[in-house]
Amino acid sequence: MPDARIAVVGATGAVGSVTMRLLRERGHRNVRAFASERSAGTSLDGIVVEEATPEALESAGVDLALFSVGTSASRELVPHAVRGGAVAVDKSAAYRLQDGVPLVVPEVNGERAFEHDGVVANPNCCTIPLTCVLGPLHAAAGLARVRVSTYQSVSGAGARRMETLLAEPQAEHDLAMDWSWDGDETDEEAKIRAEARKILELPELPISATTVRVPVLVGHAEAVWIETEEPLSPGDAASVLGAAPSVRLVDVPTPRAAAQTDDVLVGRIRVDYAAERNGLALFLACDNLNKGAALNAIQIAELLLERVAV
Amino acid sequence: MPDARIAVVGATGAVGSVTMRLLRERGHRNVRAFASERSAGTSLDGIVVEEATPEALESAGVDLALFSVGTSASRELVPHAVRGGAVAVDKSAAYRLQDGVPLVVPEVNGERAFEHDGVVANPNCCTIPLTCVLGPLHAAAGLARVRVSTYQSVSGAGARRMETLLAEPQAEHDLAMDWSWDGDETDEEAKIRAEARKILELPELPISATTVRVPVLVGHAEAVWIETEEPLSPGDAASVLGAAPSVRLVDVPTPRAAAQTDDVLVGRIRVDYAAERNGLALFLACDNLNKGAALNAIQIAELLLERVAV
Repeated sequence: MPDARIAVVGATGAVGSVTMRLLRERGHRNVRAFASERSAGTSLDGIVVEEATPEALESAGVDLALFSVGTSASRELVPHAVRGGAVAVDKSAAYRLQDGVPLVVPEVNGERAFEHDGVVANPNCCTIPLTCVLGPLHAAAGLARVRVSTYQSVSGAGARRMETLLAEPQAEHDLAMDWSWDGDETDEEAKIRAEARKILELPELPISATTVRVPVLVGHAEAVWIETEEPLSPGDAASVLGAAPSVRLVDVPTPRAAAQTDDVLVGRIRVDYAAERNGLALFLACDNLNKGAALNAIQIAELLLERVAV
Repeated sequence: MPDARIAVVGATGAVGSVTMRLLRERGHRNVRAFASERSAGTSLDGIVVEEATPEALESAGVDLALFSVGTSASRELVPHAVRGGAVAVDKSAAYRLQDGVPLVVPEVNGERAFEHDGVVANPNCCTIPLTCVLGPLHAAAGLARVRVSTYQSVSGAGARRMETLLAEPQAEHDLAMDWSWDGDETDEEAKIRAEARKILELPELPISATTVRVPVLVGHAEAVWIETEEPLSPGDAASVLGAAPSVRLVDVPTPRAAAQTDDVLVGRIRVDYAAERNGLALFLACDNLNKGAALNAIQIAELLLERVAV
């Protein structure tokens, strides 16, 4: 597996650079970096960045291409990598809801990754930790309804917003809902619902989200209210989640504690006094660049490589 | 009314200094300022700060005493002001849930203010804007259940935390739940439930909160999910709230837009797709030092003064 030929497309961005670091840390040695013309020719950890043209990707001869570029760039470039024989793991929203494209959180629906037709989609950075928690709870007691409000760091809006927060903190000391709108929701809220339903294979799951940007550098947090079909005490929920892969129980999850770890931190598991029955409330935090994006895509890639037996 | 004799106790703190400014702006001229020994003798807007001793408060000869000191200081000092003939409006948690002490948001239950026995309590800074929204919705359609997650600025934790955020922003770029614990809840979460129930006179209202400190200087925001007894469309809810006192409808409420205004900003009013029936979601923001604390107490004082006809 360490000999698999992997291309990282968008290697110089906030998520791409974490992808490069994690690949190296996990022993992948045969990695090529692609980025826009602007970054081409620069060096990343001794790897010369190549320009991500359709032709370059089609002729790259790689087994896997991990895309962390914008949605429109993914729509343009991913088909070329696939035509060149690679399996593309795409972190943008371009393919997530497309029929026939698996949307995968390995801990929750890893088996679906193998049903691809050249493209596997990586979910939104809030959907990934949320489904890491909802999946095991659904298996234990059935999900009836879910509400979530988010506390999303500026790194989710790109490297430039991180620079602004560091350079002009007061300008950023506010909340924002800096997403596009999809009717009366942010497109982030619509994504969380649609993607969670697809990953959990619960197409009718009643779920609603309120997404908020907070002046934190790295790490997204989520306040979650869950109603289950069967009774599940906070203690039993903690046991279920404590045994769940990639979940780590803590007293109070914070973005700072989650940053640069691979885990989804979960805590504050308690009864939701507002629920008619079987209500739980909890709080989670996760590194949105790591498990929320780069690591999840690498885990998908590694799943595929195990079967492909490169 | 402008001739009423008013004492502000804790006049040099984050809320006390806003109280002093608002009293001046609203035409109150007969104001005395009290604070701890440390601040006594200093001058606030030309008013020499007096030391808040039990004796000084008992002999102050004021009509009203507005307390913005900690809970234990309120427990100690408020009875002396009352013994001296003042009506105390207390912003701490000391008396809020005590039988016989009205807990008042003038727009919601102003009439209750007159039922006092010397003390009227001012609610928590999250409870005030929340009930400004819940009160009119309850009158319109009946409240069935309420969930709220908060985004609370550091000014709610005191003036020193504001200084830290300004001086060392990176140290504060994290979320926190920096309250005391009341079982498996923060005491802030328990307060929101207990106080909202008392103000709305719905002692069994199913309501739960998750309270979170965010690195914002001034202004608290709340993501709210509401289920009503009768159907209420988002459009009708907006009409109800648009006509409600102290509420201002905006597209996206933010702490910065709310700061230094008297209004509770409300927006994002939409259907809660997770609710079984009659579900609404909305977002609100409010200046926690102003309407969330100082202004609400002054409004209580002015209500009382109109009846007392000083």
